[in-house]
Amino acid sequence: MASVSLDTINPKVLKCEYAVRGEIVTLAQALQEELKSKPGSHSFDEILYCNIGNPQSLGQPPITFFREVLALCDHPSILDKSQTRSLFSADAIKRARQILDQIPGRATGAYSHSQGIKGLRDTIAAGIESRDGFAADPNDIFLTDGASPAVHLMMQLLIRSEKDGILCPIPQYPLYSASIALRGGTLVPYYLDEAAGWGLEVSELKKQWADAKSKGITPRALVVINPGNPTGQVLAENNQRGIVDFCKKEGLVLLADEVYQENVYVPEKKFHSFKKVARSMGYGEKDISVVSFQSVSKGYYGECGKRGGYMEVTGFGPEIREQIYKLASVNLCSNISGQILSSLVMSPPKVGDESYESFSAEKDGILSSLARRAKTLEDAFNTLEGVTCNKAEGAMYLFPCISLPEKAIKAAEAVKTTPDNFYCRRLLNATGIVFVPGSGFRQAPGTWHCRCTILPQEDKIPAVVSRLTEFHRSFMEEFRE
Amino acid sequence: MASVSLDTINPKVLKCEYAVRGEIVTLAQALQEELKSKPGSHSFDEILYCNIGNPQSLGQPPITFFREVLALCDHPSILDKSQTRSLFSADAIKRARQILDQIPGRATGAYSHSQGIKGLRDTIAAGIESRDGFAADPNDIFLTDGASPAVHLMMQLLIRSEKDGILCPIPQYPLYSASIALRGGTLVPYYLDEAAGWGLEVSELKKQWADAKSKGITPRALVVINPGNPTGQVLAENNQRGIVDFCKKEGLVLLADEVYQENVYVPEKKFHSFKKVARSMGYGEKDISVVSFQSVSKGYYGECGKRGGYMEVTGFGPEIREQIYKLASVNLCSNISGQILSSLVMSPPKVGDESYESFSAEKDGILSSLARRAKTLEDAFNTLEGVTCNKAEGAMYLFPCISLPEKAIKAAEAVKTTPDNFYCRRLLNATGIVFVPGSGFRQAPGTWHCRCTILPQEDKIPAVVSRLTEFHRSFMEEFRE
Repeated sequence: MASVSLDTINPKVLKCEYAVRGEIVTLAQALQEELKSKPGSHSFDEILYCNIGNPQSLGQPPITFFREVLALCDHPSILDKSQTRSLFSADAIKRARQILDQIPGRATGAYSHSQGIKGLRDTIAAGIESRDGFAADPNDIFLTDGASPAVHLMMQLLIRSEKDGILCPIPQYPLYSASIALRGGTLVPYYLDEAAGWGLEVSELKKQWADAKSKGITPRALVVINPGNPTGQVLAENNQRGIVDFCKKEGLVLLADEVYQENVYVPEKKFHSFKKVARSMGYGEKDISVVSFQSVSKGYYGECGKRGGYMEVTGFGPEIREQIYKLASVNLCSNISGQILSSLVMSPPKVGDESYESFSAEKDGILSSLARRAKTLEDAFNTLEGVTCNKAEGAMYLFPCISLPEKAIKAAEAVKTTPDNFYCRRLLNATGIVFVPGSGFRQAPGTWHCRCTILPQEDKIPAVVSRLTEFHRSFMEEFRE
Repeated sequence: MASVSLDTINPKVLKCEYAVRGEIVTLAQALQEELKSKPGSHSFDEILYCNIGNPQSLGQPPITFFREVLALCDHPSILDKSQTRSLFSADAIKRARQILDQIPGRATGAYSHSQGIKGLRDTIAAGIESRDGFAADPNDIFLTDGASPAVHLMMQLLIRSEKDGILCPIPQYPLYSASIALRGGTLVPYYLDEAAGWGLEVSELKKQWADAKSKGITPRALVVINPGNPTGQVLAENNQRGIVDFCKKEGLVLLADEVYQENVYVPEKKFHSFKKVARSMGYGEKDISVVSFQSVSKGYYGECGKRGGYMEVTGFGPEIREQIYKLASVNLCSNISGQILSSLVMSPPKVGDESYESFSAEKDGILSSLARRAKTLEDAFNTLEGVTCNKAEGAMYLFPCISLPEKAIKAAEAVKTTPDNFYCRRLLNATGIVFVPGSGFRQAPGTWHCRCTILPQEDKIPAVVSRLTEFHRSFMEEFRE
């Protein structure tokens, strides 16, 4: 065998962690196999996956209009058949034709321009303009296989060594810590204020920025996840202005993870893109660098498996744009179905289109159900002894704080694991419910959390609540001092 | 603006080059715009793209069966409609149902297992077994968004610093030099023997391996591209055995780029996977590490835009496999349409299936046409003054050697470019034909080449040949000493 061992591989790979698919999930898959091969072998009869923002895996149906268009673009030779008109909506057929006309040679099987098909980028830019009320340039759009490769690309561009710092919220989505570790940079943590509904204070940014500088680290960029993952908060516009000013003043690239922009559940909050906020403050292309990440995996569509998304790259000089283009070129292009879907989510059916009513019903049904599920789970967490849970204003997660008894913390130590991991493992073994331990997202020292998605279908929520409640009660009993 | 400049970005990004989408292509796109906005502004009326292995962009139609299955999987709710039976072939409907049954919850919009959907990996492993006659394990398959991300993943795993070397053929496909540059490793070149039909001599491997060692570089892996890109040769099985033995002896990971496995045009050559060759020599999992890359972008299907592919990873211990799995997990999963298509190319319709005859006609039509085009272009190159061109036994390219007159070399120097770039630029400006200069692939010092794909549709080939021939004649006249 070749001389490849843990001692001889890239140590940055070893350092990288990715909890969303870590130990607890592996255990869940093993339990699921056992339930299949030996029914009745556990006290539960199914695994309830609350670990990952993967709506369709839990039964959320895809949006019909989007799938109609994708199917027609995959097999355009049926477009002219009469049966097609009875199988597909008229506006899906029309949209598929428009999209095919935008693709050079109508070739959905060809590599596209490295940034993605120009006509689709036009549609996306128009969608951003109508969302923000500020101009968007199709040449600023880079279509990608989901948001993850876009984040990796920016980290690859910016990070030279461990002396380069990337400011990240704590708790954060582990893609960021993983990507920074893989590039050998330094994650500069800033803490969200749990007591203030996971508030993002500019004073905390300043403090951590100065602390990093004093250690010889050069902060290069600030990651903001809005709506928050795993924390579910939606930033107020005024707060965003402070963040923009901070980035402008310190010359930081603002990496805005805005993949949950359609997922806002409370009437008092509204999503504002960071680019819109910057433009509304009078800051243009020459004043601040903002990269906005969007994905087809989230929102009301939840098309994770399609791996579509884009980044809108503003405020970089042409020589840097050329480098970004080169990095995009090395992988040739993102997948065309994902590109098409990205254009659809930024330009869904409009009033008067044949599909508009059914589309709106599907969309509203999903979003209002998510809001109800968020509220039910939030309330359930807050009734548990020693648990506090902020509101899920947006995104797809709750991140409750669990005050674990000292005895449980010792028990975790005894089996060489973290207390939150210990709790999640016990929960899974007792109930089949899969949470992700807070450690995977990092958390304020001495606090323990877990991340729970709001995605189980509504008819499963009562089971989640009752099993969780019963487990938690007996867990607290067991470890009471 | 944020303090991002060429001086402050990752220097590895600056080092990375990717000629397939470089200067000449940018110029071609500009010319195409000019032809559109000012028809008649050039002496040619269309750009003839011979620069990239992108068959469908040049009019190659997709394989009907594959697209039927993809469309049905995108929009499964039409599967039960009676009109569907008149629009789609019966075996496509059957296959789509089988595939949907393999996907947990039939959710084509869900993230899959990080390695790809298990049922599809079963199909792919069965396809490899039937191709090779040796066992393949579905747990060795990692589905990816095309072959490029798979190559990046392996480079990321293996390269620690510039002291780690990766043996690559020269000429090579620039993905390899780009990926090694981005990871900060050292490309250890081994030269293919142009005079022996781009032969790969083990003696040359040994020489370059020893040379690298003497410079303090640790060779970690050997890249072999078979059939060759840009060189078009198909390795003889006996030659492959020597390569396997060399890797085994020196503890090198064998990175086998086998994406052109279906593209063999000469009866005297046959594709053999390196894993098959290793197994046929009696070497098992514990003897040698082989990674085989496959893609849906090449072959007779040419589905570049779908970004599908896989790597088969054999001969690593479980602790390394775990690290590879983690790296795959950080991007969650590859796109599901690409996953489905990967299973289809490894398990196309069989004798007796409704689509078999039409499928075979499509496949054979494309492959025999590619063989004719390769021969016509090869013959055309060999009639040109000072040009020699090896046979395209496989893949999609010719890589002719052009003995440029001293005066042309000086003219190139005068405008600060390489002679091959100079030639390609002149060719493009005079004829609209797009080749890639050999420099982008690297070449033996003092030799100049260009890469030309065999992909223009057959009715365009006479125009390519006559324009090229005329250009070359006048170019040689102009620079004759």
